[in-house]
Amino acid sequence: MIKLSDKYKEVRKRTEQICAPLQTEDYVVQPIADVSPPKWHLGHTSWFFETFILKPYFMGYQEFDDQYNFVFNSYYETVGTRVIRTDRGNLSRPTVADIYQYREYVDEAMDKFLCGEISDDVKELMILGLNHEEQHQELLYADIKYILGHNPLFPAYSKDYISPKPAEPANTSFIKIEEGIYEIGHRGDGFCFDNELGRHKVYLNAYEISPVLVTNQEYLEFINDGGYQNFRNWHAEGWDWVNKNHVLAPLYWHQINGAWYNYTYNGLQLLNPKDTLTHVSYFEAYAYAAWKSLRLPTEFEWEAAANKFDWGYRWEWTESAYLPYPGFVKAPGAIGEYNGKFMVNQQVLRGASEVTSPGHGRVTYRNFFQTNLQWQFTGIRLAK
Amino acid sequence: MIKLSDKYKEVRKRTEQICAPLQTEDYVVQPIADVSPPKWHLGHTSWFFETFILKPYFMGYQEFDDQYNFVFNSYYETVGTRVIRTDRGNLSRPTVADIYQYREYVDEAMDKFLCGEISDDVKELMILGLNHEEQHQELLYADIKYILGHNPLFPAYSKDYISPKPAEPANTSFIKIEEGIYEIGHRGDGFCFDNELGRHKVYLNAYEISPVLVTNQEYLEFINDGGYQNFRNWHAEGWDWVNKNHVLAPLYWHQINGAWYNYTYNGLQLLNPKDTLTHVSYFEAYAYAAWKSLRLPTEFEWEAAANKFDWGYRWEWTESAYLPYPGFVKAPGAIGEYNGKFMVNQQVLRGASEVTSPGHGRVTYRNFFQTNLQWQFTGIRLAK
Amino acid sequence: MIKLSDKYKEVRKRTEQICAPLQTEDYVVQPIADVSPPKWHLGHTSWFFETFILKPYFMGYQEFDDQYNFVFNSYYETVGTRVIRTDRGNLSRPTVADIYQYREYVDEAMDKFLCGEISDDVKELMILGLNHEEQHQELLYADIKYILGHNPLFPAYSKDYISPKPAEPANTSFIKIEEGIYEIGHRGDGFCFDNELGRHKVYLNAYEISPVLVTNQEYLEFINDGGYQNFRNWHAEGWDWVNKNHVLAPLYWHQINGAWYNYTYNGLQLLNPKDTLTHVSYFEAYAYAAWKSLRLPTEFEWEAAANKFDWGYRWEWTESAYLPYPGFVKAPGAIGEYNGKFMVNQQVLRGASEVTSPGHGRVTYRNFFQTNLQWQFTGIRLAK
Amino acid sequence: MIKLSDKYKEVRKRTEQICAPLQTEDYVVQPIADVSPPKWHLGHTSWFFETFILKPYFMGYQEFDDQYNFVFNSYYETVGTRVIRTDRGNLSRPTVADIYQYREYVDEAMDKFLCGEISDDVKELMILGLNHEEQHQELLYADIKYILGHNPLFPAYSKDYISPKPAEPANTSFIKIEEGIYEIGHRGDGFCFDNELGRHKVYLNAYEISPVLVTNQEYLEFINDGGYQNFRNWHAEGWDWVNKNHVLAPLYWHQINGAWYNYTYNGLQLLNPKDTLTHVSYFEAYAYAAWKSLRLPTEFEWEAAANKFDWGYRWEWTESAYLPYPGFVKAPGAIGEYNGKFMVNQQVLRGASEVTSPGHGRVTYRNFFQTNLQWQFTGIRLAK
Repeated sequence: MIKLSDKYKEVRKRTEQICAPLQTEDYVVQPIADVSPPKWHLGHTSWFFETFILKPYFMGYQEFDDQYNFVFNSYYETVGTRVIRTDRGNLSRPTVADIYQYREYVDEAMDKFLCGEISDDVKELMILGLNHEEQHQELLYADIKYILGHNPLFPAYSKDYISPKPAEPANTSFIKIEEGIYEIGHRGDGFCFDNELGRHKVYLNAYEISPVLVTNQEYLEFINDGGYQNFRNWHAEGWDWVNKNHVLAPLYWHQINGAWYNYTYNGLQLLNPKDTLTHVSYFEAYAYAAWKSLRLPTEFEWEAAANKFDWGYRWEWTESAYLPYPGFVKAPGAIGEYNGKFMVNQQVLRGASEVTSPGHGRVTYRNFFQTNLQWQFTGIRLAK
Repeated sequence: MIKLSDKYKEVRKRTEQICAPLQTEDYVVQPIADVSPPKWHLGHTSWFFETFILKPYFMGYQEFDDQYNFVFNSYYETVGTRVIRTDRGNLSRPTVADIYQYREYVDEAMDKFLCGEISDDVKELMILGLNHEEQHQELLYADIKYILGHNPLFPAYSKDYISPKPAEPANTSFIKIEEGIYEIGHRGDGFCFDNELGRHKVYLNAYEISPVLVTNQEYLEFINDGGYQNFRNWHAEGWDWVNKNHVLAPLYWHQINGAWYNYTYNGLQLLNPKDTLTHVSYFEAYAYAAWKSLRLPTEFEWEAAANKFDWGYRWEWTESAYLPYPGFVKAPGAIGEYNGKFMVNQQVLRGASEVTSPGHGRVTYRNFFQTNLQWQFTGIRLAK
Repeated sequence: MIKLSDKYKEVRKRTEQICAPLQTEDYVVQPIADVSPPKWHLGHTSWFFETFILKPYFMGYQEFDDQYNFVFNSYYETVGTRVIRTDRGNLSRPTVADIYQYREYVDEAMDKFLCGEISDDVKELMILGLNHEEQHQELLYADIKYILGHNPLFPAYSKDYISPKPAEPANTSFIKIEEGIYEIGHRGDGFCFDNELGRHKVYLNAYEISPVLVTNQEYLEFINDGGYQNFRNWHAEGWDWVNKNHVLAPLYWHQINGAWYNYTYNGLQLLNPKDTLTHVSYFEAYAYAAWKSLRLPTEFEWEAAANKFDWGYRWEWTESAYLPYPGFVKAPGAIGEYNGKFMVNQQVLRGASEVTSPGHGRVTYRNFFQTNLQWQFTGIRLAK
Repeated sequence: MIKLSDKYKEVRKRTEQICAPLQTEDYVVQPIADVSPPKWHLGHTSWFFETFILKPYFMGYQEFDDQYNFVFNSYYETVGTRVIRTDRGNLSRPTVADIYQYREYVDEAMDKFLCGEISDDVKELMILGLNHEEQHQELLYADIKYILGHNPLFPAYSKDYISPKPAEPANTSFIKIEEGIYEIGHRGDGFCFDNELGRHKVYLNAYEISPVLVTNQEYLEFINDGGYQNFRNWHAEGWDWVNKNHVLAPLYWHQINGAWYNYTYNGLQLLNPKDTLTHVSYFEAYAYAAWKSLRLPTEFEWEAAANKFDWGYRWEWTESAYLPYPGFVKAPGAIGEYNGKFMVNQQVLRGASEVTSPGHGRVTYRNFFQTNLQWQFTGIRLAK
């Protein structure tokens, strides 16, 4: 097993590698409230280690700057006032250089700290901190795409980025799963988030689930059939969302002189119809399934069948609302704010995406977003 | 069994009896988008019978006024343009007298129509129409309370209204329910809404559920303990709702010179601490349960235990999001817009309330509202 | 000269005559914040006499209802909390009948009061109160038109209403006015509002002003020439207003199957091209003038030339912002809130309209509205 | 007289000197819609010369980047689509380095262009462009202050910045000006904006005007007397502004542990009571004057007296709305959008401020802002 200090270095380094292609200015802006400036991610993930490990457990540790708590706290009400999420993009200071110094300072302290004896409690916090940073790595990817993809110059993130593609299965027929009792939730010793705990039985009716994700080509058929103009496909709230926001296609799609383009990490490109569809909201995923007279799987159906198909390219919207598992309890203190307080009016996504950090995904992993959000690498898998 | 034409008369009459204590002006206003003017309910329920029964099935029927479709359509996109929900309170015409004439006209036509032979399809539509009107009877009660209870003069709806109270059980200890498979959903021949169909098995862990609802006194303890000021009790979205709207107590509660009052159908009254709590949002129900270190039951836990306690006084918030049962399918046409399109970002309530029409409730009935709404007779039953 | 008590009866009666064609429901609604429900006008004008005359000066007077101050206060911060303007349409109580009783009660008390000796101070207040009620008579006309004209059934206010028309002058050439010093502001003993006081000299350059108002036909040419689509005609703020509100024509104009209709007190009618244009905002008046390569007169130019043309059919937008005359001072107390506090970001209108109360207008009268408002009988007179 | 090419270099250099103390990140953010990112000012002023001079008049000029028109157009509808003002802060590209290259590119081309023969028309455009850039220099100062002054770290712009102070007059009594005719507006050959043209006579009543500006100390007395809590001091619209925005003091003032601080270019400082008050809105200027039972001067009173006091430290709010002078005509084309389209719902400011570019002010200069804005170096001079 990898040493904790090596794992720490590896994860921390990866965050910076993700940002390597950026210009200083790209680190600063926040085009919508859901997107955070990259420099904020860099600071916030360091603040997490400083606040929850160095300050309480590393004797003699000197805080880098006592005002950074104010700036880099995300949403941890326990730990004090925070910069309102929509204001993050208004902060030119601390500068990007300041924040890289902050990272270095924290990393050096952590390096020293990890040479010493580490209690099991702190090890747990460390692993949580590393998983937390991996979550922000994925957010960084999505936020950077949003920042560059909404610039009228459409700059590429990297000309070399290659999007990984799922293996094509020999048989694309829907997989049949039998009725019965299935066990759901995390099992074993490995790390998981608190929302996966409470392994429990669920009773599933017989169902079928597709071994493949929906492609751009398939979704284009929905568009061309007037899918966005027919209220019958949509939830009432989804229909309001479409009309109020004039939604006509997934995020990053542009129709120019009759041809469809989409913005990718390589810049603005002609839409590749064979690519796996991405950047759809739950409303769109539901509407597409309704138009096909099919449906999305529940998160339990997904988990029970996940060993039968190749997943990990798109976060897959499910028919399940984000709710606690039986026996769910919040951890005490700030760590307890991690998951439970979001368990209302959000929808569960299962799987992982092409920009999920390596080793971060699990079959029991529960991601969750509001039903209107498109900026993650979301996708659609059908069931019936 | 009661004759359909008698049932029709009984239901239609009850709607008008609910409105009997109103002044003409009370029929007209719409203080918030969720509340409809009483005259709109009177017109809309008549429009339902005219549109779905008389016009398609009663040969030679002459529409009362072809502009009424525009005014009284609620949300049935299939049937044509509708008056936007927030504009209903801006319409002084048709007048209340016009609408009572419309009701009379429709009722006379229905009377003649029901003398003839009625096909099973139409019978089904009739029963749906009557249940639909009973739903609007409950909305009328809630909307009238809102209209009068938000008037600075606090006029009483009726000095004689007596609020029914649940029987006090011999034993108020939590009821224990065993782990296992339970069947959920409507069974048998009686009427139910499409969202109750698809009787299916669920697997429940062992749980306990309270035989009694939370009282004003118990909820006051939460308020007095600073429950509305402590973010730890709340969902993140609930905490935003509390702060943005300066929520300090359930709807209709007023603190005047240190004493708590609440508005009831009898006018503004000193709060009775023994009364069953009502007019709380899901956010408040969840926060109260969290403060007690307990939780709300899921809708499945509720249904599996409902024969063990006296329900029917409050719509009871559950931990379950409003989602389709396995095998749920929308009916074709306008009737299909009834339920399915609301299955996102709402929470299920179970039971029935003191103003639910007699005979309208069922153990499998699934009511649903957005998580911030307080204007219905909602309540809290705890589980663990 | 007319006796004060007769004048009182005459003015009070006229208010009720304006409302005579209304149904009870028409008294209640408030489709936009700028429009008040007719019943509110009826109550507010009575409240004015009760508050400023009966309560301070009529010994032994018993207030009708001490809660009415809360409901019928308009915007007089001095006199206590008021119902927020946008909430007036949510109040079903007091009922219309209650308010007519209130009027009768106040009128009876005033009748007795006016039998006694009246001091000059009170006489002044009386005259202010009557002028205040006449202002609300005009508002009643405009608000009733808005309420009925925005109902999808387009009910007529009265089939017999005849719109008065200005005399056509023998010569429609622009009137030339010489450069020089002119005196502006109220002179003499008659009543005027405080904003007309401070007769003072202004220096005017030579100018020309039209003896006639713009007609529907002339404004149609602006529309047909793409006037609403060309930013060059508009103020930047006006251009935003046009685009944000999708304004395409004056208020009450509807294009149906290629023909232009407008809503009048007689119901929806084919547009009469010869009629004097009305229901345009200042933004539209300015844009029309700019499109003609002309301009609006200033309020000083208007006043200096007003004896040379037939005015009194439209409130005429001027190029002047609403500002204090030299030496303007606010009266002390609540009466001082009448005019001065509105002297920012509003534009002056001169003249009077077809629904101004008889005898209410004056050549020095200064009306004022925000630049986006269309619901009054506004019009356009050009200058150069 | 200074050569045009030298003047060009001097002005362009000064813009960059203003930005010299900034970090790259400071160039990017836009905390409110009224503040533009410094990099936008740098680009926009260059775009002005490229668009209005180089492209039409410098044969063979190659546009630097044809997408820059989209990004750096401000509000010139004539010249094409523009980036919406509130979105400027979401653009990380072009980078600051890109924009400095753009400036250099344009400056080199201008340098060559200015070696040739320049027509009078182009000279006029040049002078307009330089005055335009000087206006943006002042905006840069104000916007930079806003960006740094709203950062929770309160970084100083420069530790060496010294705020210039007006000379204290021997006699601070109000200056008396006699009744009569005065001439207003630009005279002579020098440059002025179109809104100053049309020198014309105005008739002024006798008035008195203060030779000094209001100080922090004097304004503190207004605050301490409850000036922000008493509606009597305020316009109705100002009172709404105060309450809606919880305004308690001028912009940049902070009360910390009972003491008043304000943010200056040197960082957060204890408030100096002797300093000239700044960063007040028109609403505040009006309220302060009302509280003193005085008033603001009109712009005509200001201009007629301006040779009698030391001005140029604060833009001084006047009682005059921003309206056209007699005979005002818009220039044709994009240049005509400069001033006229803003002549509604804004108030005139006279004078100049401590950050106005040297030589940019004039006694006839008319600045104008919306009545709620505080971010400029505004001040108060009283009249009676």
